[in-house]
Amino acid sequence: MEKQRQFDRELEDLKKKLIHMAALAETMIDKAVAELVQRDEKVAAKVPEYEQELNRLEIEIDEAALTLLATRQPVAGDLRFIVAATKINGELERIGDLVINIIQNVQTLLAQPPLKPLIDIPHMADLARRMVRDSLDSFVGGDPLLAQSVIMADDRVDALKDQVLRELLTYMMSDPRTIERALALILVSRHLERIGDHAVNIAEDVIYMTQGRDVRHPKTPKERPADLEM
Amino acid sequence: MEKQRQFDRELEDLKKKLIHMAALAETMIDKAVAELVQRDEKVAAKVPEYEQELNRLEIEIDEAALTLLATRQPVAGDLRFIVAATKINGELERIGDLVINIIQNVQTLLAQPPLKPLIDIPHMADLARRMVRDSLDSFVGGDPLLAQSVIMADDRVDALKDQVLRELLTYMMSDPRTIERALALILVSRHLERIGDHAVNIAEDVIYMTQGRDVRHPKTPKERPADLEM
Repeated sequence: MEKQRQFDRELEDLKKKLIHMAALAETMIDKAVAELVQRDEKVAAKVPEYEQELNRLEIEIDEAALTLLATRQPVAGDLRFIVAATKINGELERIGDLVINIIQNVQTLLAQPPLKPLIDIPHMADLARRMVRDSLDSFVGGDPLLAQSVIMADDRVDALKDQVLRELLTYMMSDPRTIERALALILVSRHLERIGDHAVNIAEDVIYMTQGRDVRHPKTPKERPADLEM
Repeated sequence: MEKQRQFDRELEDLKKKLIHMAALAETMIDKAVAELVQRDEKVAAKVPEYEQELNRLEIEIDEAALTLLATRQPVAGDLRFIVAATKINGELERIGDLVINIIQNVQTLLAQPPLKPLIDIPHMADLARRMVRDSLDSFVGGDPLLAQSVIMADDRVDALKDQVLRELLTYMMSDPRTIERALALILVSRHLERIGDHAVNIAEDVIYMTQGRDVRHPKTPKERPADLEM
């Protein structure tokens, strides 16, 4: 009985660490894009620190999961939960890496005058951040329907990415002086789209975990978005 | 005794499946870039089929690993090996996705006359393929030194990516008619660089597995390459 309660606490602790990782990742996305929109480098000053914390948490979660697997020898749902945790921590850590990439592009952009008012990119960032939150909520709540909604939302992010590309290509073609900035914005949109992909990976792990059913590779032809539709 | 032998066979089977995934991934990288260099769409015709096989193998490995964890309750090295397998299969599957992205860019490129002779991109592809092979060999042989060499090789791939970017920016800026093709080539180089990143992830998992030491987040400043250094 006491042993079971101890085990439950350890699982709860694993869950809390993942929620903390997701909260950090969301804040990082928010700050990186706010820095771009507000054109103020101070806005995202703490992002590299958060990324370090994500790195630490990823390792802590792996260690805790291995210890649980070795000492508690869980089965069924608990086993799937723990293995899912060791996959989801990696997804969240990579979201942190992508935000660092975004910040680097933003620094390129802030060194030059603004190219255009930004609408689609902040919108993409909101969608991506929401996907990260929902994917983690679906994990915590064991909610495959919420996970499914994350998978659906990915289409909107992909559509925005294509729209950003098309618009910025016209800038580049009409004025070579815009090429560096347009390319930096294209890369920001691609990093955001990849953040959405990581949220989808988490959602797929959740569906797998909750239903024992693998949705990671649907058979329909629309499996992976085309990368450069132009 | 018989039980132990059965367990060893199951671990061996897991290993073989991962080796098969890596071989498929290597072939896919090879074919995608050969299609670009030879300007012949037939060269990579089988790549989507291989990608489907990678997807199937990823799921099979997760299933086998969960079954092993639940029924054999492994500890120590075997436990680390099995958990590493459930991470490495995801890395290899994503390499497959990246090759599909490359093929999409290649199709854009083959629809237009060649922009320039290709040197750096085939070189990047060779390096990335070699990294994938070495990372898997290091896993199979439990060889942390080989894994370390994969991590070192990543700097060369990153340097080539930056070189490709700089060269293609000059094309774009001097002639807007090259923009679409230059952008497609930049994206191909970025997909190759990300394939290298996945090999690094595998290598880091191997070092962790073999040494129980986590090298995934070195404290040195040169932790993540700058994304767009221009």
